[in-house]
Amino acid sequence: MEKFELNILGCGSALPTTRHFASSQIVNLRDKLYMIDCGEGAQLQFRKSKLKFSRLNSIFISHLHGDHCFGLLGLISTFNLLGRTAELHIYSPHGLEKLLAPMLDYFCRQMTYKVLFHEFDTKESCLIYEDRSLTVTTIPLHHRVPCCGFLFAEKQSLNHIVRDMVDFYKVPVYELNRIKNGSDYMTPDGEIIPNSRLTVPAPLPRRYAYCSDTIYSPEIVEQIKEVDLLFHEATFANAELARAKETFHSTAMQAAEIARAAKVKKLVIGHFSARYENEDVLLSEAKAVFLNTQLANETLCISV
Amino acid sequence: MEKFELNILGCGSALPTTRHFASSQIVNLRDKLYMIDCGEGAQLQFRKSKLKFSRLNSIFISHLHGDHCFGLLGLISTFNLLGRTAELHIYSPHGLEKLLAPMLDYFCRQMTYKVLFHEFDTKESCLIYEDRSLTVTTIPLHHRVPCCGFLFAEKQSLNHIVRDMVDFYKVPVYELNRIKNGSDYMTPDGEIIPNSRLTVPAPLPRRYAYCSDTIYSPEIVEQIKEVDLLFHEATFANAELARAKETFHSTAMQAAEIARAAKVKKLVIGHFSARYENEDVLLSEAKAVFLNTQLANETLCISV
Repeated sequence: MEKFELNILGCGSALPTTRHFASSQIVNLRDKLYMIDCGEGAQLQFRKSKLKFSRLNSIFISHLHGDHCFGLLGLISTFNLLGRTAELHIYSPHGLEKLLAPMLDYFCRQMTYKVLFHEFDTKESCLIYEDRSLTVTTIPLHHRVPCCGFLFAEKQSLNHIVRDMVDFYKVPVYELNRIKNGSDYMTPDGEIIPNSRLTVPAPLPRRYAYCSDTIYSPEIVEQIKEVDLLFHEATFANAELARAKETFHSTAMQAAEIARAAKVKKLVIGHFSARYENEDVLLSEAKAVFLNTQLANETLCISV
Repeated sequence: MEKFELNILGCGSALPTTRHFASSQIVNLRDKLYMIDCGEGAQLQFRKSKLKFSRLNSIFISHLHGDHCFGLLGLISTFNLLGRTAELHIYSPHGLEKLLAPMLDYFCRQMTYKVLFHEFDTKESCLIYEDRSLTVTTIPLHHRVPCCGFLFAEKQSLNHIVRDMVDFYKVPVYELNRIKNGSDYMTPDGEIIPNSRLTVPAPLPRRYAYCSDTIYSPEIVEQIKEVDLLFHEATFANAELARAKETFHSTAMQAAEIARAAKVKKLVIGHFSARYENEDVLLSEAKAVFLNTQLANETLCISV
């Protein structure tokens, strides 16, 4: 299986604690990196993670609250100090570019690279990013300000060549691409070797869904059905259900209910309120509803 | 002696490392806190230090480079989330308020407290802050952008009452303030008790000088003469002397030369370039010139 990992850089909520950084994650698909949210300190955590700055080309911002984007200025400045040349693409709800522009103009006067902003509407799900191996689609969420989660969907890979069979039939290299794409092979003698003998199907494409910040929103279930990994915010425990509603956040149990309804394979919860000395209560409340749940933490790296 | 301490929150330079945060310090004078510079992550380090957010009312920004002020937005937001009501005063070179305004307007819409900006000219030394126990004066430095250090000077305290003598002469409480201010005391019998018998002089007022960022600038020596503690940037080792000049920074040896020329009591060096895996070379180069030198680090708390 090719690498498809989620690295948590920060999983606290807005108030800083000694245990958690503000929201930020890095999706690592085949050593290409995609950042989700960029709270204060994201570049410090990124550095600590040993992932390579140069592998990051896209940042996805869920919403314009400080704990999800105050790390952008530092990260952009650092890339500039390092002499980055590759374009950096930032995807976010409307308004971010205009907000950052005065600070960027002032603090990053001579940029060695371009920062390109792509702003999306948060009301409807839309495809905002696509490359050879991945699509990213927004997941409209309900928070105090316009907010979207993101669905990272690996593309279906081509069939895998069975090396022994290809050697056995002495298939020339220039035929390999056609065979990966499903063609049969005809030998010089005119014998047809069916594709099924020369290839095995690639593994099923994997999907990761990021849902933060949001009030309990069952309408997202359809879009994240059976994803391999779901990150869902779980700011509060059940005892704070009223506060969760009031602030448009979710409880751990609600996160688990979404996971169960969507029949996801695994749930990671995060965006923890500063009030919890540890998150055991959140974990146990979630597990009561959806067993395959784990807590995010700042050193977590998990396979999708 | 009353408390006068320096807490280092961050002593790295612009590029993040796994070992150092960007510039930020807290001066603690009798449990009133004064922040100097506020790089990214300052609020996280502040929280870790166990110092109280509510004791901070003034922030002094040396210059408008990101690694000295990108932490302001997060700190201001956090104070707002915590429902702070006391005014927060920010002292900085010209331009900061205008730069931060759009972000503050957007991210901190309903402020529970006021942020007041006080911008100063960096060309001449000026008194920018004064309260009952302290003055803060700028120290003009030479960097790539307008930049000042800060001289924190404790005010001379009143004489200290000698409790035993005051009890012996049955001095009434309402006389104590006059005696602290130097008056003699006349007993009901008309006997004059000289002040020198009732008090001891308060300790000499202490001074702390912060000088970062700056190229080697011997002209600051006069202003920081014989301070109790000097923090001076030491971005580079001697081997990088040319680079230090080019970027308007100092070497560790130059920092020590300033300390020696000013006959300061103690030198702490910081603002370390990311290129050093550890700062042993900086420390030994500085100590060769000024023995009473120590390296800053993110948990350092040192008495002035």
